[in-house]
Amino acid sequence: MLYTKPLARLIDEFQKLPGIGPKTAQRLAFHVLKSSEADVHGFSQALIEAKALIGQCSTCFNISCENPCELCTNPHRDKSLICVVAEARDLFALEKTGEFKGLYHVLGGLISPLEGVGPQDLHLQDLTHRLSTMPEISEVILALPPSVEGDTTSLYVSRLLKPINMKITRIAFGLPVGGDIEYADALTLTRAMTGRIPV
Amino acid sequence: MLYTKPLARLIDEFQKLPGIGPKTAQRLAFHVLKSSEADVHGFSQALIEAKALIGQCSTCFNISCENPCELCTNPHRDKSLICVVAEARDLFALEKTGEFKGLYHVLGGLISPLEGVGPQDLHLQDLTHRLSTMPEISEVILALPPSVEGDTTSLYVSRLLKPINMKITRIAFGLPVGGDIEYADALTLTRAMTGRIPV
Repeated sequence: MLYTKPLARLIDEFQKLPGIGPKTAQRLAFHVLKSSEADVHGFSQALIEAKALIGQCSTCFNISCENPCELCTNPHRDKSLICVVAEARDLFALEKTGEFKGLYHVLGGLISPLEGVGPQDLHLQDLTHRLSTMPEISEVILALPPSVEGDTTSLYVSRLLKPINMKITRIAFGLPVGGDIEYADALTLTRAMTGRIPV
Repeated sequence: MLYTKPLARLIDEFQKLPGIGPKTAQRLAFHVLKSSEADVHGFSQALIEAKALIGQCSTCFNISCENPCELCTNPHRDKSLICVVAEARDLFALEKTGEFKGLYHVLGGLISPLEGVGPQDLHLQDLTHRLSTMPEISEVILALPPSVEGDTTSLYVSRLLKPINMKITRIAFGLPVGGDIEYADALTLTRAMTGRIPV
């Protein structure tokens, strides 16, 4: 005997989620069966609604229910700064710090020949077009991860924007706050050393 | 700025699941937004259907779409053996071994004064009633976990069934297959020693 069909299907659906293996999927499915009907309907509804209501801002490509999004239309944001990120979740991480008050541009990924992602798959043309229509922008900040793909994409963007003659910076990479120099890996230490700043 | 409402709600729903924290919930929600509409509808539908179609067998309290369930009505199962488990997921784990061919009885939990679960909250009366109507049963096997609650419940069930004068056994606890004696914890070794069997 195996699971009844609706249960097998639910376990299967949970397993499609990232980081969820067969054991966790089974535990989650059993949890759903033990939940009240109202709770399960709420969950099901939240899935449908999120998918139906949330779209993309056609200016910055952040996820949003409105177009343009609240960040692009917010009069209190500093329109002279634009921060380039790979994914919308990176934008949310930066927003949580409250440090950056400028605009964003979500590329939708990173250049990765191994995964078949080329520059044409990212919102790069939209970026150059956007910059050409916004003379008030004075600096482009690249907040892309310190990985092979992140470095490649940063290099690509900086070369792409060279003709516009604009200040381009990249966020700093080095020792994380609270990190021990003794235990830091060689690559991080190298980055921290080459990225040193005057005090 | 924080998440738009439908996204915040979806993250919230994922966080209600066991073992899913805020970071994982966010990752899962972003995955849903990146999935196709058909996939999200499939997931949503699987939740509703599982909850709507899956009920409980009123005989053994296993989860099932039919009542009585396929295990209770299966003519090939050995009706002289009944295995008592805490949860339906324990039943599935035992079924996967293919070792046991008898019937099951799901208690729906374990006696736990700390969590306010008493004998009246479990399907214990149903068990005694069921046994009294099935003269063909020759042995009750307790497959409850080796924990304080599992031990308490095993003791309670064995005393409850004493008047019926039936063979009652409990599954063996000891060294897991592949386990090293050197690295086994003291409690497991004690159980293995006291539960030793003649060779």
